[in-house]
Amino acid sequence: MEKQTTSEKIEQLPQTLSKIIQNKSSFCFGIDAILLANYAKARNGDKIADLGTGTGIIPILMSSFYPSSTFFGIDIQQNAVDMANRSVILNELQSRIQILKCDIKTPFPVLDKNTFDVVVSNPPFIKKEDFVVNESGMDESKMIARHEICCNAEDVIKCASVLLKSKGKFYMIHKPFRLSEIIILLDKYKLTPKKIRFVHPFVNEEPTMFLIQAVKGSSSNVIIEKPLVLYKEVGVYTDEVQQFYSKKSID
Amino acid sequence: MEKQTTSEKIEQLPQTLSKIIQNKSSFCFGIDAILLANYAKARNGDKIADLGTGTGIIPILMSSFYPSSTFFGIDIQQNAVDMANRSVILNELQSRIQILKCDIKTPFPVLDKNTFDVVVSNPPFIKKEDFVVNESGMDESKMIARHEICCNAEDVIKCASVLLKSKGKFYMIHKPFRLSEIIILLDKYKLTPKKIRFVHPFVNEEPTMFLIQAVKGSSSNVIIEKPLVLYKEVGVYTDEVQQFYSKKSID
Repeated sequence: MEKQTTSEKIEQLPQTLSKIIQNKSSFCFGIDAILLANYAKARNGDKIADLGTGTGIIPILMSSFYPSSTFFGIDIQQNAVDMANRSVILNELQSRIQILKCDIKTPFPVLDKNTFDVVVSNPPFIKKEDFVVNESGMDESKMIARHEICCNAEDVIKCASVLLKSKGKFYMIHKPFRLSEIIILLDKYKLTPKKIRFVHPFVNEEPTMFLIQAVKGSSSNVIIEKPLVLYKEVGVYTDEVQQFYSKKSID
Repeated sequence: MEKQTTSEKIEQLPQTLSKIIQNKSSFCFGIDAILLANYAKARNGDKIADLGTGTGIIPILMSSFYPSSTFFGIDIQQNAVDMANRSVILNELQSRIQILKCDIKTPFPVLDKNTFDVVVSNPPFIKKEDFVVNESGMDESKMIARHEICCNAEDVIKCASVLLKSKGKFYMIHKPFRLSEIIILLDKYKLTPKKIRFVHPFVNEEPTMFLIQAVKGSSSNVIIEKPLVLYKEVGVYTDEVQQFYSKKSID
């Protein structure tokens, strides 16, 4: 295993015995990744791609849910790829998870077309035109992970469509203010929304995120699922969310 | 005033002193009309169209919210038009509400293009291919009001777009399973969704309806609003919905 830089930290993941390397100033996972990893459904044996994998949290977590599936996490940032690869080695998951440097606008020949059962993505949420150039002095890697600098929603959706087999499933988390645009883009790339679940901080508040499942080459209706509510009171997760953060012990 | 047929009933509307004629076997309003009339926002003086007006509930109710606005309710069914017109006369609203027989697929010259500030519609929800031909022996008028026999979602959206002024507002209530299709159709006819509010029977259940506001010739983001929950316990409306059913007295 390569040595860690000083600002990195190894943390125990919830729901699994796996660990993950994070770096608070560049790549660290949030609740969006935890929600998406739990929302995405796969069958054992599925071939799964994660577009913009960052720390590698999604393939590492999902690999424990689907023990005979294989995962390809791609990211455009070499420092993310290196760090995620060290997490994969730390958990001895090299036989099942490959982390690859790859631009989702040109994913071939790193990944093969029409071969994936499932594609997941927790992409940058913020439009290029909506962010003020690095006013906060944010680390460049974090900026790229959160803003549509290297890829936008259309690039992600197009890539997912090309990678998926017919009837393959795409799972994404995104911001509600971009819902219409995303539904129109999914339609453009022959991905049909089948389920949408809005994520509300509190039960009587506007959603701040949504989870979506779309199927390649399917047709017809979408189900709007019951709200996913994060908190039952300030600082206290609902039972549903609390289970996503449950610790797993060896015994 | 024309005489009523025996199966008709005059009822007091909530939130206003107006009355409405209903016929349980053909045209009667439901909670969807009440929710839409309260969701739609207009400025006083606006010219407002209601596509598929049925009993005329929406213009009659909204006319009390916006006392200097004028309303055009259209319906393809002559018996609905006749009954709604009798309700308009009953409330002495003839100077402000016109109920007209008109096919929304060919609304001209009954209504003028690009002249409406607001268009509302509580259209048939059920797709033509999804209903079993009158297995329940349902009255034909009610069938037409509830199923896409004489018009479909695209006809309604196209009509709204053509009637509205630039930046005019379209309000509709529909079923969540048709959300993607409706967003794509709105985009096709240059109507941009600005707000969507899902209507849930109970707080932890899937929505059964959604309210949408779209603006003609606008652009950009949509707001997903906080859930509109109908019941706090079985048979008991939430406070928000209860106020839509509040009785108004003369004093």
